[in-house]
Amino acid sequence: MSGVYEQLRTRIREIGQLSAVEAMLEWDQETYMPRNGLSARAEQLALVAQLAHERRTSQEVGELLAQLDGNIQDEAAATNVRETRRNYERATRVPAELVGRIARVAAGAREAWKSAREASQFSLFAPHLTELLELKREVADRIGFVEHRYDALLDEYEPGATRSRIAGVFDGLRRPLIELTRRLGEARVQPDPSILERHYPAEAQSRFARMLAETIGFDFKSGRLDISVHPFCSGTSPGDVRLTTRFNERSFSSGIFGVLHEAGHGLYEQGLDPEHSFTPRGLAVSLGIHESQSLMWECMIGKSHVFWEHFYPQCQQTFPEALKSVPLNAFVAAANAVRPSFIRVEADEVTYSLHIILRFELESAMIEGSLDVDDIPEAWNAKFESLLGIRPETDKDGCLQDIHWSTGTFGYFPTYSLGKLNAAQFFAAARSAMPDMDERIRRGEFATLREWLRENVHCHGQRYRADELVRRVTGQSLSSEPFLKYVRNKYEAIYGL
Amino acid sequence: MSGVYEQLRTRIREIGQLSAVEAMLEWDQETYMPRNGLSARAEQLALVAQLAHERRTSQEVGELLAQLDGNIQDEAAATNVRETRRNYERATRVPAELVGRIARVAAGAREAWKSAREASQFSLFAPHLTELLELKREVADRIGFVEHRYDALLDEYEPGATRSRIAGVFDGLRRPLIELTRRLGEARVQPDPSILERHYPAEAQSRFARMLAETIGFDFKSGRLDISVHPFCSGTSPGDVRLTTRFNERSFSSGIFGVLHEAGHGLYEQGLDPEHSFTPRGLAVSLGIHESQSLMWECMIGKSHVFWEHFYPQCQQTFPEALKSVPLNAFVAAANAVRPSFIRVEADEVTYSLHIILRFELESAMIEGSLDVDDIPEAWNAKFESLLGIRPETDKDGCLQDIHWSTGTFGYFPTYSLGKLNAAQFFAAARSAMPDMDERIRRGEFATLREWLRENVHCHGQRYRADELVRRVTGQSLSSEPFLKYVRNKYEAIYGL
Repeated sequence: MSGVYEQLRTRIREIGQLSAVEAMLEWDQETYMPRNGLSARAEQLALVAQLAHERRTSQEVGELLAQLDGNIQDEAAATNVRETRRNYERATRVPAELVGRIARVAAGAREAWKSAREASQFSLFAPHLTELLELKREVADRIGFVEHRYDALLDEYEPGATRSRIAGVFDGLRRPLIELTRRLGEARVQPDPSILERHYPAEAQSRFARMLAETIGFDFKSGRLDISVHPFCSGTSPGDVRLTTRFNERSFSSGIFGVLHEAGHGLYEQGLDPEHSFTPRGLAVSLGIHESQSLMWECMIGKSHVFWEHFYPQCQQTFPEALKSVPLNAFVAAANAVRPSFIRVEADEVTYSLHIILRFELESAMIEGSLDVDDIPEAWNAKFESLLGIRPETDKDGCLQDIHWSTGTFGYFPTYSLGKLNAAQFFAAARSAMPDMDERIRRGEFATLREWLRENVHCHGQRYRADELVRRVTGQSLSSEPFLKYVRNKYEAIYGL
Repeated sequence: MSGVYEQLRTRIREIGQLSAVEAMLEWDQETYMPRNGLSARAEQLALVAQLAHERRTSQEVGELLAQLDGNIQDEAAATNVRETRRNYERATRVPAELVGRIARVAAGAREAWKSAREASQFSLFAPHLTELLELKREVADRIGFVEHRYDALLDEYEPGATRSRIAGVFDGLRRPLIELTRRLGEARVQPDPSILERHYPAEAQSRFARMLAETIGFDFKSGRLDISVHPFCSGTSPGDVRLTTRFNERSFSSGIFGVLHEAGHGLYEQGLDPEHSFTPRGLAVSLGIHESQSLMWECMIGKSHVFWEHFYPQCQQTFPEALKSVPLNAFVAAANAVRPSFIRVEADEVTYSLHIILRFELESAMIEGSLDVDDIPEAWNAKFESLLGIRPETDKDGCLQDIHWSTGTFGYFPTYSLGKLNAAQFFAAARSAMPDMDERIRRGEFATLREWLRENVHCHGQRYRADELVRRVTGQSLSSEPFLKYVRNKYEAIYGL
């Protein structure tokens, strides 16, 4: 048996290495590649992806998996076999011809989306979306599902999650978040977010952000921070984790909180078990768990009062022009201003999940076929008004704002909110384990929390699926309660309610 | 027939793309990779190299080549089939087991060479070199050769070159270079090379070097310049050419002339025909031709008096502390100081080829078996004295200075000198075609020369082997005469003889 597993493991590692090479080529494309390198790079990426796909779906892997059907004692081997089987089955159920067709249709859809967004006219994008939905329904049917067709797509980003389960959790969020948003909007004293839109020199932002990332524990011997148009974290192994950001001189948040966000992802990647690199046991669980790590460091820690009790004096020295005369409380309030707005990526922690609930409900209805493409703009605007109390005036500020659907990505949006819920639930558990956590943060001591996360979350890789991991770490299933408790406590204090 | 060729071309392009991916991963390793990424990167490089090798030696490629044995009309197709056949034959004649054994022995040899060099004790390296030589002799015997065993190894770096032919050309160089070195050494007025060892701030070097590279025509939309410990040029396609350098604040030459050297390589890569990228027809001919392009821009143009007539005022403004009171003539003389020295990589244009003749004679004798490994230090020192008039006092300054032999690289050294000879012969032809070339350079106009090189050398890729290319471009076979004429004219003027 162990000989068969060793053979499979060699193949699994090859697939993992090819994915790492792909990530490296993509990182380079977004950071340093000269612009005329684009067409050759596209070919290289396609070739490497194809080589990985051939291996993932190879007869050899299928046969090795079949021979390993019995009970596997070794935990890491069991994890790797389970997840490789999952990937093999998902990949072999969708014929290459269909994958190629989707790629071609998506390429056209993406261009159409750009033009439609430019013109703020959904009808230009509608026929492409209709075609993509048909193809993605076919994918879902081929992959198979128990209850909802949407589940087959969701499973790609959040293995094991289902529409019903997510809908149940989101149902617990909706009313309380609408209610909290309303109460905060009515508070007598409102934060002044413009404080964070003063002049913040890029070079100073870069220095300060690097210092923060290093202080919370991001290891620059095992990683980098570079500039790209769209910030991301690309981890190819715990020894090589690449963060990117951009520094806008009129936005403290996009640079500084952006780096804390990516560094949170980076700490997860650096905390994976190097012994299992390039196999599922050494890879992150899911998007929802990954996002929990970035959000915890960006929002729960990085936008907390105690965090800035430690760093604010240094921050004022770094940005004297903008912050010299701003008191700590006003700065923290500005970083946590809550206000309904049209654009998801600019939304605050409280209203953000309302944007996600909207997308989740619409896209699952589209996939199930209960929402016609032509009715999307009206459905979007009506639902937006009921959730956020304001109504987009244009498609550009409404249903055309996100790129996801134009690339055939359905089932991804909910992972953003799952990230917030996971983060709050993990954070509450960490607090119980370390009652003096606020004191530690106030002193700038992050090692204890980081090690707790490493031991409890990071080092397991894909040993447990997301829901089981949450149960093991926090003692209960995922629920909206810890998040609601967290936002209520935090924002009532900030808004003086 | 054309269907078979199209099938082969697809495979050739895949091999080319995989090599480009390998080059990209190596570039990243030398420039930006965090240090803890090393072990994963080594695995990735090995995997990509293995995938390329499998394709290069695949049965499918062998069968397609066999079907294409007839006459091929299309020139590019004929080039690609000819060179792919060559690569296929070379690669399939050497069993994977032997390649693996050499890699393992070389890994140990490289470490032993480092220690031996540190201790300046050749005997520590000797047993490893003996083992490597035996293995490389086996490689040569398997590949096959007509006259000399060394030819089979030389052919890897300089397809079609032979020991006899090179020895003939080098024989014409030896006496005249020894003689010229002696005469220059006796000249009444000697250059002061220390001018170029004053303080040259790194940031100013970087700005100035970029300006020079851009002015001679390196296209930064299709390339980059970054920092690495060992400078190199890595071209993956004409749209993506990466130069690297290092800036030492006590060396004008290593930064500025180093960038001109790499930019010369870069202009070749950017001048290849993009229609044939990733196939031999779109790749550089040989190391000797590649080096001719870097040396032409670095030495023949970049260290010429007319070049600095144009750039020296700006250079003085950029480095006022070092150069304010240095007249143009003294600066040009410093850049062209000739002096016998022990270390090849620090040698000047005149004595450099004497270093190469030494290595060529020793390594070919080692491979043929007429020089025992134990006799190398004495043979080196004696030959060094007869060529350069000085005798190394340590192995470190003698036969242990270069890394090449420790990596199993035999047959590479002569390409450096072939580069110089090719450069001089091309440059003489360019001068005949453009009698006003000096005037153009004096005006900072490089487009005419660059386009001439592009049309006559770069755009052909591997259409012609090196010797045929030289004949076609210059009207005669490679000879030492143009180089000797060039150095005599140039250095007699600089030294006032």
